[in-house]
Amino acid sequence: MNYPNGIKKETQNNKNNSTKPQISYKNRGMTLESELNITNEYYREIDKAYIYKKPTPIKITKVDYPSRDKTVIKEAFFTVPSTTDYNGIYKGKYIDFEAKETKCKTAFSLKNIHPHQIKHLNNIYNHNGIAFLIIRFTSLNETYLLTAKKFIDFLKNENRKSIPIKFFKENAYLIKDGYKPRINYLEIIDNLIGGI
Amino acid sequence: MNYPNGIKKETQNNKNNSTKPQISYKNRGMTLESELNITNEYYREIDKAYIYKKPTPIKITKVDYPSRDKTVIKEAFFTVPSTTDYNGIYKGKYIDFEAKETKCKTAFSLKNIHPHQIKHLNNIYNHNGIAFLIIRFTSLNETYLLTAKKFIDFLKNENRKSIPIKFFKENAYLIKDGYKPRINYLEIIDNLIGGI
Repeated sequence: MNYPNGIKKETQNNKNNSTKPQISYKNRGMTLESELNITNEYYREIDKAYIYKKPTPIKITKVDYPSRDKTVIKEAFFTVPSTTDYNGIYKGKYIDFEAKETKCKTAFSLKNIHPHQIKHLNNIYNHNGIAFLIIRFTSLNETYLLTAKKFIDFLKNENRKSIPIKFFKENAYLIKDGYKPRINYLEIIDNLIGGI
Repeated sequence: MNYPNGIKKETQNNKNNSTKPQISYKNRGMTLESELNITNEYYREIDKAYIYKKPTPIKITKVDYPSRDKTVIKEAFFTVPSTTDYNGIYKGKYIDFEAKETKCKTAFSLKNIHPHQIKHLNNIYNHNGIAFLIIRFTSLNETYLLTAKKFIDFLKNENRKSIPIKFFKENAYLIKDGYKPRINYLEIIDNLIGGI
């Protein structure tokens, strides 16, 4: 198995030579969401792409006004999102994706993606948008980009409740870890749309 | 002044012939946001465009778990949005806009648009996205589409705290009221990008 950027090697080095500090960009405590936020911020800084995470949808049921200029939400509930979490513009094109982490080593459960999110990705793909999933297998430290096309083909052809890791290895793109950008997923998009 | 779809006439008819029911698509109590939501829903229904309002950004400070499957937000605050409210895909292109209502009859105050929203619209325009504002003068019952380009040019050339209605009349596009779609702003976009 190919760990990105030689994770195995680093671990071995740390064991054998624990006094020598290792420069590592990896932060196992960092969530995929945090890393994507940093990445998207970097893309904006270098004027490459404008991609944002959408705010979490909530339903507000109680609001308080302790002072004239202040509004405090006193009760609200998370609601099911009707779209994906991330969207924006890259090279004039509409880009849209959902990002999920799983601890499972063998498969990605389809419970993680809501039916209307699947429909949404399909709509975006049909309208010539760049639509995909970013799935991280945290236990394997592997992050994949799976295009909406391949994802929808899987759902059409297979009657399964999860996508096995084998499918990702054969049909998705492994995203390399990095420093700046942290998760360079647009590099993969460049190859898919023909690059600059 | 030209009221869209003969508002004046209707009012006169109602006065002169109050027993005859008038079919009117106008609902003065409906907010621009509600009308845009209905419009975008219609565009999705007919598979024309996939444009959504982003959830309102909030910062959650207290959360309660009354039961295993339930999460209740007990305290949260509205935060300043870093982007515009609406975005999506139309004809494969990225589309992005902010919508605002004003009661003022003479001008649209620039206080209504945050500086980073202006920067955001400028970024989208520079990256070949379709970026604009939809501004409704509720007292005039007039709704305008102002392109990001014209909006930014105004900010560059004029040192004013508001955009006078005259500028809208001369540089923006009046959006006709309708039934389905309610606010057919994509008709104007079609003309701007050269139609189908």
